[in-house]
Amino acid sequence: MTRRAPSGAAVLQPGITAAITDAVLAELVERGYARLSMEGVAKRAGAGKSALYRRWRTKQEMVLAVLAEISVPRVEVVDTGTLRGDLHALVTSVAAWLTEPPFSRIIPDLVAEITRAPDLAEAIAASIGAPRRALARKVLERAVARGELAPDTDLEMAQDLPAALVYWRMVVRRAPVEPDYLDRVTDTVLRALGAASG
Amino acid sequence: MTRRAPSGAAVLQPGITAAITDAVLAELVERGYARLSMEGVAKRAGAGKSALYRRWRTKQEMVLAVLAEISVPRVEVVDTGTLRGDLHALVTSVAAWLTEPPFSRIIPDLVAEITRAPDLAEAIAASIGAPRRALARKVLERAVARGELAPDTDLEMAQDLPAALVYWRMVVRRAPVEPDYLDRVTDTVLRALGAASG
Repeated sequence: MTRRAPSGAAVLQPGITAAITDAVLAELVERGYARLSMEGVAKRAGAGKSALYRRWRTKQEMVLAVLAEISVPRVEVVDTGTLRGDLHALVTSVAAWLTEPPFSRIIPDLVAEITRAPDLAEAIAASIGAPRRALARKVLERAVARGELAPDTDLEMAQDLPAALVYWRMVVRRAPVEPDYLDRVTDTVLRALGAASG
Repeated sequence: MTRRAPSGAAVLQPGITAAITDAVLAELVERGYARLSMEGVAKRAGAGKSALYRRWRTKQEMVLAVLAEISVPRVEVVDTGTLRGDLHALVTSVAAWLTEPPFSRIIPDLVAEITRAPDLAEAIAASIGAPRRALARKVLERAVARGELAPDTDLEMAQDLPAALVYWRMVVRRAPVEPDYLDRVTDTVLRALGAASG
């Protein structure tokens, strides 16, 4: 969390934080990052602008805190005992994140925005990308420890593969997917990693 | 090409078509698809709106014709004699298309736009996606014919892989890439396809 420490004895009421969080997501879906304003969020949340600024210093900080809160699962990726099982769970959760509301709308807008704002790209990578990738890395490191992956596996590429395939097919191309699509993504990733099949 | 047949004896002057094409690309880069207008393009091209409507019936038809003209290479993907060689050439051309101006700006905007306009997604798939994928399919079918790929290879997934990896790493994540990145994408795709290595 990147929330600002309350100044003096001020207490941040959780109910107001929740209302602001919902308002940020709704404004991102309806208006997009570029046109979102602190004023618009405050109005929608039924709060004063000062309630926002007590929590976050800037629009960017507020948006990223809200998105990170929701994007980065609080729980570990379940250890199913095999790389195939772990990867399937990972692929399924990545697909849900990228293709279901509100992120199915929000992420493409942010990607378009960062072509004009490189500092936003870095902030997103730090607050959302890095913690999400750490979860994928744990899955891969468990597989190396089990002997299912070679120690010199290209882990950077391995971490890209599930999201890359799902994003390209389902978000960029908007192509229909077969019921077994996520199974096939899992198989493709396993082969790409040179995983011992089984 | 989806240009309209000229009515009567009207002739479409190539110089004006070129000026309009440049104007469409510049407006897409600066303003994005949603804010692009026939009027803005005409003004920038130094042409009348009638010059646009003689060529294309709608904004969508105009934009897609211009993008397809530039996105879909006129030449065959070179036959290097091996799947590795062909794939490396394909990966390199896909990366250039996705990451260099003007498309590095235009594609993310269109992806954001189609979350709100499914019919645009279908039109882009038909005019740009399908012909580009046909080129990738040729590379893969040559490899099947050479015995480098099994006849039951998942060609749909295979056609997604190069663009998916490059787009996720370089456009969505904006992560730095190593000098050998495109070699590693090629290796990853080869392994994912279960290609006989060598």
